[in-house]
Amino acid sequence: MTTPGDVCVERTALDRLFDPRSIVVIGASTDPGKRGYQVIQALRRSDYPYPVYGVNPRGTTVLDIPVLRSIAELPPGIDVALIALPAAAAPQAVRELAGVGVAAAVVLANGFRESGPSGATAESELAAAAAETGVRVVGPNTSGILNVATGANLVGVGDVPSGPVSALTQSGNMLLSLLADIRAAQGPGLHTYVGLGNQVDLRYDECLRHLATLPGTSAIAVHSEGLPDGRAFLVAAAEAARRRPVVLLRGGRSEAGKRSALSHTGSVAGADDVAAAVLTQAGVELVDRSDELAVVAGVLATANAIPAGRAVAVLSDGGGHAALAADALTAAGVPLAVLADETRNCLRALLGAPAAVANPVDVAGATDADPALFADAAAALFADPAVGSVLVVGLFGGYHLRFDARLAEDEMVAASRLVDLVDRTGLPVVVQSCYAIDQPENHRTLRDGGIPVLNSIDHAVRGVAALHRRGIRRADAHLRADLRLPSGRVDAGTSGDARLLDEPAARARLDGAGIDTGPWRFADSAAEAAAAVAEFAVPCAVKVVSSAVGHKSDVGGVRLGVAAADAGQAWESIMASVAAKAAGAEPAGVLVVPMAPTGVELLVGVTMDPIFGPVVAFGCGGVLVEALRDVAFRAAPFTRHEALEMIAETTASRMLDGYRGLPAVDRGTLAEFLVRVSEFAAAAVDLVELDLNPVIAAGDALYPVDVRIATR
Amino acid sequence: MTTPGDVCVERTALDRLFDPRSIVVIGASTDPGKRGYQVIQALRRSDYPYPVYGVNPRGTTVLDIPVLRSIAELPPGIDVALIALPAAAAPQAVRELAGVGVAAAVVLANGFRESGPSGATAESELAAAAAETGVRVVGPNTSGILNVATGANLVGVGDVPSGPVSALTQSGNMLLSLLADIRAAQGPGLHTYVGLGNQVDLRYDECLRHLATLPGTSAIAVHSEGLPDGRAFLVAAAEAARRRPVVLLRGGRSEAGKRSALSHTGSVAGADDVAAAVLTQAGVELVDRSDELAVVAGVLATANAIPAGRAVAVLSDGGGHAALAADALTAAGVPLAVLADETRNCLRALLGAPAAVANPVDVAGATDADPALFADAAAALFADPAVGSVLVVGLFGGYHLRFDARLAEDEMVAASRLVDLVDRTGLPVVVQSCYAIDQPENHRTLRDGGIPVLNSIDHAVRGVAALHRRGIRRADAHLRADLRLPSGRVDAGTSGDARLLDEPAARARLDGAGIDTGPWRFADSAAEAAAAVAEFAVPCAVKVVSSAVGHKSDVGGVRLGVAAADAGQAWESIMASVAAKAAGAEPAGVLVVPMAPTGVELLVGVTMDPIFGPVVAFGCGGVLVEALRDVAFRAAPFTRHEALEMIAETTASRMLDGYRGLPAVDRGTLAEFLVRVSEFAAAAVDLVELDLNPVIAAGDALYPVDVRIATR
Repeated sequence: MTTPGDVCVERTALDRLFDPRSIVVIGASTDPGKRGYQVIQALRRSDYPYPVYGVNPRGTTVLDIPVLRSIAELPPGIDVALIALPAAAAPQAVRELAGVGVAAAVVLANGFRESGPSGATAESELAAAAAETGVRVVGPNTSGILNVATGANLVGVGDVPSGPVSALTQSGNMLLSLLADIRAAQGPGLHTYVGLGNQVDLRYDECLRHLATLPGTSAIAVHSEGLPDGRAFLVAAAEAARRRPVVLLRGGRSEAGKRSALSHTGSVAGADDVAAAVLTQAGVELVDRSDELAVVAGVLATANAIPAGRAVAVLSDGGGHAALAADALTAAGVPLAVLADETRNCLRALLGAPAAVANPVDVAGATDADPALFADAAAALFADPAVGSVLVVGLFGGYHLRFDARLAEDEMVAASRLVDLVDRTGLPVVVQSCYAIDQPENHRTLRDGGIPVLNSIDHAVRGVAALHRRGIRRADAHLRADLRLPSGRVDAGTSGDARLLDEPAARARLDGAGIDTGPWRFADSAAEAAAAVAEFAVPCAVKVVSSAVGHKSDVGGVRLGVAAADAGQAWESIMASVAAKAAGAEPAGVLVVPMAPTGVELLVGVTMDPIFGPVVAFGCGGVLVEALRDVAFRAAPFTRHEALEMIAETTASRMLDGYRGLPAVDRGTLAEFLVRVSEFAAAAVDLVELDLNPVIAAGDALYPVDVRIATR
Repeated sequence: MTTPGDVCVERTALDRLFDPRSIVVIGASTDPGKRGYQVIQALRRSDYPYPVYGVNPRGTTVLDIPVLRSIAELPPGIDVALIALPAAAAPQAVRELAGVGVAAAVVLANGFRESGPSGATAESELAAAAAETGVRVVGPNTSGILNVATGANLVGVGDVPSGPVSALTQSGNMLLSLLADIRAAQGPGLHTYVGLGNQVDLRYDECLRHLATLPGTSAIAVHSEGLPDGRAFLVAAAEAARRRPVVLLRGGRSEAGKRSALSHTGSVAGADDVAAAVLTQAGVELVDRSDELAVVAGVLATANAIPAGRAVAVLSDGGGHAALAADALTAAGVPLAVLADETRNCLRALLGAPAAVANPVDVAGATDADPALFADAAAALFADPAVGSVLVVGLFGGYHLRFDARLAEDEMVAASRLVDLVDRTGLPVVVQSCYAIDQPENHRTLRDGGIPVLNSIDHAVRGVAALHRRGIRRADAHLRADLRLPSGRVDAGTSGDARLLDEPAARARLDGAGIDTGPWRFADSAAEAAAAVAEFAVPCAVKVVSSAVGHKSDVGGVRLGVAAADAGQAWESIMASVAAKAAGAEPAGVLVVPMAPTGVELLVGVTMDPIFGPVVAFGCGGVLVEALRDVAFRAAPFTRHEALEMIAETTASRMLDGYRGLPAVDRGTLAEFLVRVSEFAAAAVDLVELDLNPVIAAGDALYPVDVRIATR
């Protein structure tokens, strides 16, 4: 055991918070119903080996822990204080703790921002105390922190299994869910946990970065209900995800869920499809179901990623499970390996005539008498370069329960050999078994050897899908953009009033940024308009230019297919129409643009997401935009590789390869265009919105027909 | 105990099969490794109280059961024979069993159709034996049948919990999955089970009908991998689903899954989206995840349906779970109730200021000291006429484990009061709890009282979604069509070569069936074409008529917007073009149709699904059809109510209400049109395909622009 003074020298505040070598409970209590007692009890029960103190005006002791009458009496340099006081008392306590060199404080109380105006004031005071003193504050409205290895259990929940998963949640109940799911799946246990609550100081981004550096953490499970600084989270998540898998369950995705999350945490809500897209872009593994968080984090913490370019083989002892696993893999977008002839021949020789040796492989009874054949079949599959992972489904490990108790030993052999195979190849095996609930010894062997065993085919497949994506992300990490933005970019884009540029100004702005909007001319007289059309020598669109006109067509401000001879008349009729329908619009002139050829109508846009900042949208354009809702999003900036992924996600992509007489579109050109838009979106601090709809695409040419930009 | 002769008088063969009062094992064995031994052992262990016999050429006894040397020696009128003989011996055994009045035989062996040509021969012989003798055959390649109440356990699996769920699976391993999932969820147990295997005689439809009549069965869980007669299944499922909830998990939905199912069962594969649509139409509750089959069937067997028109309230003891439950309900299409002001006031009074009293309701700590408040809050919610169900999420029942052991009694009170509330209101409560895995006594109270308790929010929500749909189906059952078809409809439509009608014949056929294709004229000369255009007095489309021309536009056979004065020239140019590009087409003339006005482009079609027969397709039409893949399917025939549901499912429906300057479309007219097409599709035994693309819709008018019909 060390004294507080020894350890605080070299460790950062976060090191001291997440692995405290001394703890003080402010508001220590002798009442077993109070958190000020329960925490001390929990530290005792989990054999926390370092010094613990209490503070309470009445002094005395709690469970043999010395309780001092004031913070000032504490020895200097304690790592973490748990503040179990009412909301109003917390800010002053933080200030006093700073005086004795405490690194971090966990504030349990609720009654802050989430409870209304007076709570918001208390929260501001707490934030100020943290900022001014440098004491790192976790919470308020938090469940606390947990370091399972040392027994630093400030959450007060018992029987937490130790393991490689670290967790970060908004609300404490989510830790209970996570623990229940870990128990239900007999999955890997926890390493470090922090409940962030209202995030007055410590936020997701810093915690993620820190957890990703911990040697004992192999995967990070995150639950959030709104991110106060989404872009910082994105950047931190991308950084963390390069070191460790990051799995995220988001609460508040639906309107009703958002309403609940808002009342609960006071968070800001953004568009859910944007959030899902940009978080995936950052390399976060999103789970949609709450019962998947523990499972997916557990699988990622246990098994190796599937090498990029390799696919999955299903190995089953029954056709029913084989088909369901294949269905679930397909639905999850995981490719099934096409097995080489020699692999099939090898499987045929091993498993006999009744077996199905195409993928999914069904041993069809061959293993009933000799379960070790599973390991031989898996080895045969891994010898095929197309196979990057084997998913075993069915009854594995339960043959001695179903058929003959004497098979127990053979099943242990099979399990050991599968573990050896994983060790030797570095390729992941995942097992689903109807007998997982019986907890046979051979399943323990598998789990201890890095082979996840799950009861549900769907959970097993979900884990395999995560391993598949992780392999791809590791291979193409160097092809992805850094998501950091110039300082001020987000704030400038999300506050104050927006102003629409007129179209010539908008086009000039884009052209200047290297985003080619094609040929265009501004004309401030009928004669100039005619000259412009004549210069282009093709029929042109002539459109009114007025920053007071939002929708030019609605006021008769557009003429299409105008020839040079008709340009003067077009000018006159536009001006007459706009004067009649938009009195006071005072047009500056007209824009003359050659008519675009026939092509695929696309949408390219930029919006400022209130959480994640500048985001680029791409999809089907034209009048069908709202009906089709075919939009892919990415946080700006992004790379050509990411742009191509974005394009491939859309319905629009089905029309790019010469669809129904439309010209084929060069995806590379389109991707480069999107990249330039994304770089502009990231860099242009005043940009609020960009809308290019439609962009007509034909071959390697792109024609933005309408260009709208709003700035601040 | 009764003798076989007593009971077979009044009971049908299926009564005798599913509730046998005497059993014989053909191929009884003294070898504990053989099924012929294991089945007798299982019957003993499950205390089957009725007579059991064995047959084996060597005679003797197995576990005190008399073994006779031949079938002929058996007493007459045994209900069920389990045939544990090799494939080749099964047909003869069935014939001999008929001689002694056995009602039904379960054939375990594999090595039939699924194993190749020789197996197919054995299967035909078995089918013939069943057909000729009237002995009902289950299998072959089956796991057997199970009547849990009487202990008639021909499957040989132990420890099957008794309960209200009956199950029907293709493969025996799926029973093991089901049992594992029931144990994992501590859900309701089984009543009757049958593994259908290759379905040489007894098929899904008959079993479904039978199970739906059993008083001890409250829900039917089905697993299939292809249906040999899909339409019969649809009809039976619709009938069964009116009596009992039918939950279906389909294996072989993906290409890889289909491949597996085919090699496994030799089934025919149809289009997956068609199958999902028509099975839902029949009132079947489809589950996509294998881990949902037991859960959803269990919830439907336990809890009442949610009355149609009422919505769901979430009652939570933490914001994290509340938001996730709301998200999951929204994703599942389940409406959250909008609570009345007085309901909110009542909840506020009950739960205090920190609670969130909009739906989802978060008690925010109010129940920590008094769990019985859950029951009060649920009662307040049920007093609101908008609320049809309460979903409780969080820690219910585990407070005594989490906070204070003394709360155990209060939690029992809360559970009892929730059960009383369900009894009194008839409205369902579903509970999710992180403490389900701890199996507290109060959860047993809930389950015994008809309140499902689940560990996973997602599973709980899935169950609630099923209760929601069930309530709607019960309310609108009288608005749904009978899915029976005229005899010969399916066979005629799926065999032999199809022939394309020329368009005038196709239009005449539809017009004759009461499906108005609008005005049109056939013209066999330039003069007649000009007269037709003149008669319509609007610009017309002129299209070549030739049964040898598949795509008229491709051979220059179409002119659009033709005025009367130009009709002669249009005729000439069409004939010249077709002669040049489709030599030998020998056009009969042209079709003259007034140009359709601007409108929404829709697709209406009929296809013959190889499994379910005539199916109507509806969605976005025009050139985007393939890119958008916006198609809803329904089995023909269907009602206006069902047509309106079908329309609402599509992206096209977003364009029907005056989208972007397009005319609004009358949904009633469109629905009536679809109904007439569906009735034609059901009745026209020679119809193979109908393709109306596009149909231009504007107001209450529909203009089928191109009409294609293929017949046999």
